Amino acid sequence: MKNRIITISREFGSGGRTIGKMTAEKLGIPCYDAELIEKIAEESGFSKEYVADRDEYAVGKGLLSHAFADRDFYGHSYQDELWTVQRRVILELAQKGSCVIVGRCADYILRGQADCLQVFIHSDMESRAKRIVEQYGEREDSPEKRLKDKDKRRAAYYNFYTDMKWGDVHNYHLSLNSGALGIHACAETIANLY
Amino acid sequence: MKNRIITISREFGSGGRTIGKMTAEKLGIPCYDAELIEKIAEESGFSKEYVADRDEYAVGKGLLSHAFADRDFYGHSYQDELWTVQRRVILELAQKGSCVIVGRCADYILRGQADCLQVFIHSDMESRAKRIVEQYGEREDSPEKRLKDKDKRRAAYYNFYTDMKWGDVHNYHLSLNSGALGIHACAETIANLY
Repeated sequence: MKNRIITISREFGSGGRTIGKMTAEKLGIPCYDAELIEKIAEESGFSKEYVADRDEYAVGKGLLSHAFADRDFYGHSYQDELWTVQRRVILELAQKGSCVIVGRCADYILRGQADCLQVFIHSDMESRAKRIVEQYGEREDSPEKRLKDKDKRRAAYYNFYTDMKWGDVHNYHLSLNSGALGIHACAETIANLY
Repeated sequence: MKNRIITISREFGSGGRTIGKMTAEKLGIPCYDAELIEKIAEESGFSKEYVADRDEYAVGKGLLSHAFADRDFYGHSYQDELWTVQRRVILELAQKGSCVIVGRCADYILRGQADCLQVFIHSDMESRAKRIVEQYGEREDSPEKRLKDKDKRRAAYYNFYTDMKWGDVHNYHLSLNSGALGIHACAETIANLY
């Protein structure tokens, strides 16, 4: 496999998705995010909404207990089924050509399988809170509470399916603070390193 | 203060010191590492060897217990005295002009005091083990044991004096894996972001 892949893991509200798109544009390669959801939905038979809702921060209330719930006779859950399809789709995309893949544990799935630049985008709580209110509007819960809840779910999902610690600096080649550096500088830095 | 400072925190054996020097050369600004030790020794009256030995990974066996030992009537230790001088020297250097400062908790000391780019250099155990054997030769202990020991001490020292978690990605603007990216690419990336 000679393709070169950029995987972007990101904290909710850090602008990782936008940075992924910008980087891909700079490099003239595709960025898979919404397309990834469509492809996984198509191949799994789940609805796009269901797939989108079950990203890295998808484990429901009760966290890990959820991953063990709704299992069939063989111990498989819908979540496991989704994971299997997601894994296959990501491996296929990486084989097809160089690209940027945002989220969905692509960093873990492609480890040892492709030439990857593994990026983590994080930011301070204040910048993230501002960003999610701009992007998704006000909700009943405070933005800080929403962020903490998403962070917890994402970490639990990631740790469950990858047995690695979410957000541990050692999992990545490059970690960037988008709040301090700005979205544009992050995209520029990733593109330059690639 | 209009100077712009780059602070480099690094895992032992990750090549952070070399990256600091390379970055400073690219930017035509000074890099304080050995000079910093000399200055701290001069102002504190401690020997250069004593100061060099008490960097971020200086807390001895028993980790935190050491930081509480050897205290005078007022609860101060030599370690605290060194910290006070180190803090003053770093603040003075930052006021003097733009520069790169390697280690010695400069990232924490300059937080809110100067325009800083906070960098963390890490690497996988294998690359670090190879590097320390090349740089410091074989010892009785295995390189892995030496690294784990240094990591523990550095973390304990940092956590004690800064009340922040050593190596937590959120403490930095930019974290780079020097083993995967290479020393030159790291220096280039820092210089570009600056």
